[in-house]
Amino acid sequence: MHPLSPLFSPQGVAVLGASENPNKLGSVLLNNLVEYGYAERIYPVNPRSKEIMGYPAYAAVSEIPHQVDVALISIPDAQVVDAIRDCVNARVKGAVILSSGFGEKGEQGKAVEASIASLAREAGVRVIGPNCMGVYNPHASFNGTYFWDLPRTPGKLGVLSQSGAYGGMLFRELKSRGLGVSKFVSIGNQLDLTHADGLEFLAEDPETQVVALVIEELRDGRRFVEVGRRMRGRKPLIAFKVGRTEAGRRAASSHTGSIAGRAEIYGAVFKGAGVIAAADTEEFFDLTTVLDACASNLPSNDGAAIITISGGPSVAASDACEEHGLEVPRLSEATVERLKSLMADFAAPLNPVDMTPQTDPANYRAVVDTVLDEPGVGGLIAINVGLDHELFGEAFASGKEKHGKPIVACTLDTPKIDACFAQAGIPVFPTPERAVKAYRGLVRYRRIRQRGA
Amino acid sequence: MHPLSPLFSPQGVAVLGASENPNKLGSVLLNNLVEYGYAERIYPVNPRSKEIMGYPAYAAVSEIPHQVDVALISIPDAQVVDAIRDCVNARVKGAVILSSGFGEKGEQGKAVEASIASLAREAGVRVIGPNCMGVYNPHASFNGTYFWDLPRTPGKLGVLSQSGAYGGMLFRELKSRGLGVSKFVSIGNQLDLTHADGLEFLAEDPETQVVALVIEELRDGRRFVEVGRRMRGRKPLIAFKVGRTEAGRRAASSHTGSIAGRAEIYGAVFKGAGVIAAADTEEFFDLTTVLDACASNLPSNDGAAIITISGGPSVAASDACEEHGLEVPRLSEATVERLKSLMADFAAPLNPVDMTPQTDPANYRAVVDTVLDEPGVGGLIAINVGLDHELFGEAFASGKEKHGKPIVACTLDTPKIDACFAQAGIPVFPTPERAVKAYRGLVRYRRIRQRGA
Repeated sequence: MHPLSPLFSPQGVAVLGASENPNKLGSVLLNNLVEYGYAERIYPVNPRSKEIMGYPAYAAVSEIPHQVDVALISIPDAQVVDAIRDCVNARVKGAVILSSGFGEKGEQGKAVEASIASLAREAGVRVIGPNCMGVYNPHASFNGTYFWDLPRTPGKLGVLSQSGAYGGMLFRELKSRGLGVSKFVSIGNQLDLTHADGLEFLAEDPETQVVALVIEELRDGRRFVEVGRRMRGRKPLIAFKVGRTEAGRRAASSHTGSIAGRAEIYGAVFKGAGVIAAADTEEFFDLTTVLDACASNLPSNDGAAIITISGGPSVAASDACEEHGLEVPRLSEATVERLKSLMADFAAPLNPVDMTPQTDPANYRAVVDTVLDEPGVGGLIAINVGLDHELFGEAFASGKEKHGKPIVACTLDTPKIDACFAQAGIPVFPTPERAVKAYRGLVRYRRIRQRGA
Repeated sequence: MHPLSPLFSPQGVAVLGASENPNKLGSVLLNNLVEYGYAERIYPVNPRSKEIMGYPAYAAVSEIPHQVDVALISIPDAQVVDAIRDCVNARVKGAVILSSGFGEKGEQGKAVEASIASLAREAGVRVIGPNCMGVYNPHASFNGTYFWDLPRTPGKLGVLSQSGAYGGMLFRELKSRGLGVSKFVSIGNQLDLTHADGLEFLAEDPETQVVALVIEELRDGRRFVEVGRRMRGRKPLIAFKVGRTEAGRRAASSHTGSIAGRAEIYGAVFKGAGVIAAADTEEFFDLTTVLDACASNLPSNDGAAIITISGGPSVAASDACEEHGLEVPRLSEATVERLKSLMADFAAPLNPVDMTPQTDPANYRAVVDTVLDEPGVGGLIAINVGLDHELFGEAFASGKEKHGKPIVACTLDTPKIDACFAQAGIPVFPTPERAVKAYRGLVRYRRIRQRGA
C-alpha cells in the first residue's frame, strides 16, 4: 500500500471547524462527508459543542476514542499550529489544512508553514495544504473537500490541482461531459505534500489511468522528473502551469505564496517528465478530455483525415492541422475514385473529405470506412455543424470499432450524433480548432510514449 | 439608398425551387419567408405547380405580374443559367443563387459562373452566391436563407460570411448570448457580389454598428482596403480568414472554388483595411461578442486590472495579459492601502486584486471603485468561478456606469452575477484567457481607431 493511501481512503475522519452553524466552511466539510456516504466514521471536533449534525463532538482529535486517519482542518489560521500538535498527539496519518492565511500572506505566514512542516515531519504526519480545497476519493465515498457537487460516479482521471478554483472548474467541465475522477487532491501552499508526492501516488493508483495537474510552483522539480519518467508510457500526464509570466508570477506569489519560476526551467522539467503541457485553461480541459477518452487508442502516425458535411469549418480545421504540426495527407488515387462514387457530384473527395449535405446518408459509413483504410491516415477528425443524422454518428462509431483508429469530433446542434459519439467514446468539441488541438494531444502522447519506450 | 438595399429589403421575392415537397430545400426557403413574416409578396416559381403552400405558383419569374426585387434560386445547377436569363428578363434587382455545383467543382463550374456573371452584369442584376446560404434582414422580416432558427430580434451586428456553415455557427453563438444581427449575407463562390461590395453596404447601413466577416478568398483586395479605410473608426471590422495554410487552401478550393492566397498578403490587406483579425473560430466569436457589447466604451490605455475572488484563474489571466500584450500595472501605494482596509487580511491588494472568498461582499463595490479610480487602469477583467453573490455583479455594473471604463468577465456557475452582467452590458467568457483575449480586442480596436483618426 502506498504511504499516502490512508489520506485518500481513511479509517476515521476528524473535522476541525465543524459547528452548529451550517454556513461555516467547517460545517460544509462535515455535511459533504455525510452526503457522500462516509457516515460511520466521522468525528466533529469543536470544544464548544457536544453534538453536531447528530454526531458526538470532541474537544480535540486526541480525545476521539477511535482510529482517526485524517483530520480535515477548517479553522482560523492562528489556531492551526495547535491543531497540528493535537493531530500529532492523536497519531493521525494525515492532516488536510483547508484554512487560508499562511504563505500567501508573506514571510510571517511562511515561517508558520515551516514550523508546521517540521512538527509534522518529526511525527510522520503528512500534511496537505494549507490554503487548499481538500481531497476526494469517490471509490471510498470520501469527499474531504469544500465542493458539494462533485461527480459521484468514479472515473479514471486523477487530478492534482494546486489551485482549488481550478479543481472546481475542471469538475464543472467533467460534469458537463458525464466524466468523473478516480482521485482529486488540491495541494495549495504545499507545506508538505508536493506535486511529486501526489504524482507518485496517482502513478501507482490502480484506479487512475490519466493524470491531470495544475501547477503554480513545483517545489521538487528533480523528483517530479523522476516520478514522471517512471510512469511514462503507462499513463498520460497532462499539466497546466500558471504563473508563466512576470504578471502571472506576481499573482501566484500572493495566491499560494509560490515562487513560480522561469518558463524555460519548466519547459525542461516537463520534457524530462514526459508532460503534455497545456497552453491555457481550455486546452488543459480539452487535453484531459481527449486523453481520458482515447489514451488507449492512439494514432499510429501524424496524418489525420478530416471528414465533414460542413465546408467552412473543415477549411478552418485544415489550417489548424497545419499550424499545429498535424499532416492532412492527400488520399491515394484509388481512394479518391472510390469516394467520388459514394458522394454527391460536387462533394470534395480530397482531404478534407467534404461529403456536403447532398451525399446520401446511406453512404456515410462506406466513406468513413474507405478513408480509414488508407495507411497514411492515423485517425479522423469528424466535423458536422448542424445536419443531425444518426447515420453520420453511426458511420464514425462503426469505423472506430472496425479500424481501431482514434476519432475526435467537432459538432454543433447535433444531439443525435452526439449521443452516438458519446456511446462510442468519440470526444466532441465545439469548434474545429479545438477538435484539432485535442487530436494533436493524442499525437503528442504517442511521441512521448515512443521516447519513453 | 445604397444600390444593394433592395437585396436586403426587397419588394417582392420569387422562390425558384419551391415545390409541394416540404423536404426540398426550395420549400425550406419558401417556408422561412412565410414564417418570418414576408407573407404578402412571395411568388413561388415552379413550372409544374399551380399553387404551393397556398401561394399561386408561376412558370417563370418573368411571368409574375408584380414587382420582384429578389429571386431566391434553389434548383439543380444545370438549370441555373436559364433561371438567370429569366431573372434578367423579369428585371429583378438581385438573384441569390443558393444552389451548389459551380466553381467548387473545378474549371467547368468556374466557366459557368463566368457566363452567369457576364449575363447579370450586362443587365445590371446583382448576384449573390452561388453555393451560399442566402440573405437575412430582421428589420424587414426577410429571411432569404436556408436557416429556420435565426434570431428574430434585430441586433447591431452585420455579418458577411463566405461560408454558410460559419454563418450558422455564429448564429448559434449569438443565440446563446441573446444577441441578434442587423443584416446577414453568405456570399459563397462570389461570382458577382464580393466581400468589398457587402462591406461597403454594411459600412453605410445605419442599423449596423459592428461588422463581422468570414473570408476564404478576397477577390478584390484593393477595394476591400479602400472600403475598410473609409469606415475605420466608425464601426469595428472583425474578420476570420480561413485557408491560411497549404492544407486550408486546398480545402477552400474544393469548398467554394476559392484561391485562398498567401497569409502575408492577407496580413497587409487586413492592416490597411483596419481589420481586427481572429486567429481561430472561437476568437472570431469572442471578438464579435466583445465588440458588439463594448465598441462604444473602449479602454483609454493598455493597462487592465484583474479583480477576482478566484486565485488560480486570476494567475492564468495575468499570464494571458502579458502573453497578449496587455499591461497588468501595479497599483499606487494609496490604492493598495485602501484595498487592504477593504479586504480580508490574506487577500491580495496588488494587481490582480484577489479579494478571496473571505472579503465582506458589502465591500466589493468599494474595491471595484477604488481600482477604477486609478488612472493607469483602462478597464477591468472580472473573474469569479463559483461564488455567486449578487453584490459581486452589482459592484462591477455600478463601477462601469460610474467610471465609463469597459469591463469584461470570466464567470462559471454564477447565474446571479451573469444576470447582472448581462443587464449591464458586461460580456462574459468561460475561461480567464478568453476574457483576456476578448478585452485585448477592445485595445486592438482602440489602436486601429487611433491610426485611422
